[in-house]
Amino acid sequence: MSATRGSFVVLEGCDGCGKTTQVSALVARLEADGHRVVATFEPGATELGRSLRRLLLDDDGPVDPWAEALLMAADRAQHVATVVEPALAAGTWVVSDRFVGSSLAYQGGARGLGVDAVADLNRFATRGLEPDVVVYLAAPVAVLAGRRRGPADRIEAEGDAFLASVVAAYDAIAADRGWAVVDAAVTTAEVADAVWAAVVAAVTP
Amino acid sequence: MSATRGSFVVLEGCDGCGKTTQVSALVARLEADGHRVVATFEPGATELGRSLRRLLLDDDGPVDPWAEALLMAADRAQHVATVVEPALAAGTWVVSDRFVGSSLAYQGGARGLGVDAVADLNRFATRGLEPDVVVYLAAPVAVLAGRRRGPADRIEAEGDAFLASVVAAYDAIAADRGWAVVDAAVTTAEVADAVWAAVVAAVTP
Repeated sequence: MSATRGSFVVLEGCDGCGKTTQVSALVARLEADGHRVVATFEPGATELGRSLRRLLLDDDGPVDPWAEALLMAADRAQHVATVVEPALAAGTWVVSDRFVGSSLAYQGGARGLGVDAVADLNRFATRGLEPDVVVYLAAPVAVLAGRRRGPADRIEAEGDAFLASVVAAYDAIAADRGWAVVDAAVTTAEVADAVWAAVVAAVTP
Repeated sequence: MSATRGSFVVLEGCDGCGKTTQVSALVARLEADGHRVVATFEPGATELGRSLRRLLLDDDGPVDPWAEALLMAADRAQHVATVVEPALAAGTWVVSDRFVGSSLAYQGGARGLGVDAVADLNRFATRGLEPDVVVYLAAPVAVLAGRRRGPADRIEAEGDAFLASVVAAYDAIAADRGWAVVDAAVTTAEVADAVWAAVVAAVTP
């Protein structure tokens, strides 16, 4: 057990913004600097979460928006309790592809439940755990839509109007909450440098 | 669409207290009085809920207590939005085997999350819907344990110490929240008469 807690870095943004690639690049840089790092994601990083993710993204029936927000929060509670918090407590860095910010944008903003209400709900899932830095990979709808590949899941299938409302929600929430905003419409290497600069500025690794 | 909303009756208590039998008896009496009635239950009355119930009660892995409370609330949100609220709005009575009270007793009391915190969480699931009357079928641990049959699910398998803590939580919550308390250790017919009396006293059917 290390004496100092690890740092908790979250990458946020829509599908197609490059989060997965950037999580890998960031983890490689942190490890090269000598840190122990866990790369993780939401939803679906735990055994319970995998079942919930299937249920949320593949289910054919309509899901009430509050039920969707509560399921995302349940996935998060299990993730925080069994993956994120134990790693941080042991002095390991955690880099997560999505966290509370995704629920604020998708359920709070795009689904219209209200960003503050969804933030209140998520306190039951996180028990006060806050990221040390949230990096938002921002890209316009046209860029994101062009990067989609493979079959769409239930949420992706809602189309470009829904995607536009998620982007608008993310943009507003990032400004309100002081997230680090990185332009994700440039090259992978340029984005990686900007993500690294944002992390260094926030937590001095 | 009826001009007046239906009444919402909830039966609470531990497995083995006779809720299922008493829901049937109550529905039969209400229908004999000329009411339209929907009999329902938690968790698992909706398609989403059936998947969640399997996940919650059959899963082998450990489930974080807050994740459990959030999953129960997600089941409830879907139940309220797609079953309970539409029926009440159409003037139909709803009689439910379990509602928020079960989460207060199991997750709030027995799991130690706190009754008030779990009540706060459940506001996101119910959006303000309150039962017109909650009838608690009270029975001592020895009676409940003796009535168990069939293979135990994940929660039942926790044994008599957990059952005793659920009973203690139910007893305290029923007193605090002014639920109608019915002695469930007598004959089925006697319990049915007492449930009917409690419903009549609260909502004059």
